[in-house]
Amino acid sequence: MTTPTQTDLNLKALQLLQEDAEKIAQLISVQLQNLTLPKCPLYEEVLDTQMFGLSREIDFAVRAGLITRDQGQQIIHDLERKLADLYTKILPT
Amino acid sequence: MTTPTQTDLNLKALQLLQEDAEKIAQLISVQLQNLTLPKCPLYEEVLDTQMFGLSREIDFAVRAGLITRDQGQQIIHDLERKLADLYTKILPT
Repeated sequence: MTTPTQTDLNLKALQLLQEDAEKIAQLISVQLQNLTLPKCPLYEEVLDTQMFGLSREIDFAVRAGLITRDQGQQIIHDLERKLADLYTKILPT
Repeated sequence: MTTPTQTDLNLKALQLLQEDAEKIAQLISVQLQNLTLPKCPLYEEVLDTQMFGLSREIDFAVRAGLITRDQGQQIIHDLERKLADLYTKILPT
């Protein structure tokens, strides 16, 4: 049995956080496709809650030395860009 | 320079989570001492939000292999006991 190195842990942490961000994008995508009112307070509350949860996970991973603060900001930034894309695709003007 | 071992990381993760739980207890303690209406919705919302954030951090740490699920449940359990103590001390019947 091999003991995981810190590099293994760093990669795993980054991968887990990217998966969590992806899950949020999926959830929001499903919501946008099914809600008749995507601007409804319930939708925005779900998004706020999910983003808060992810930001707490990322902050913890940074403090534990598993990822850099830049990597954490990149995950949030990528997710925000993906959500903006979803809006424009699903809610065409 | 020494590379931290997984044991160092495990201990650090556990310590960070316990500190975060302690911060929630402190926050709630201050709130209980200052609010005239400790059962007000705002107070309960703050507590719910903080507990949700901590539970996401713990879940992430478990998935990253930094702490066991039992250790995570223990942190939540200890915090809940501490909050129950605060209630009985600050809000005597």
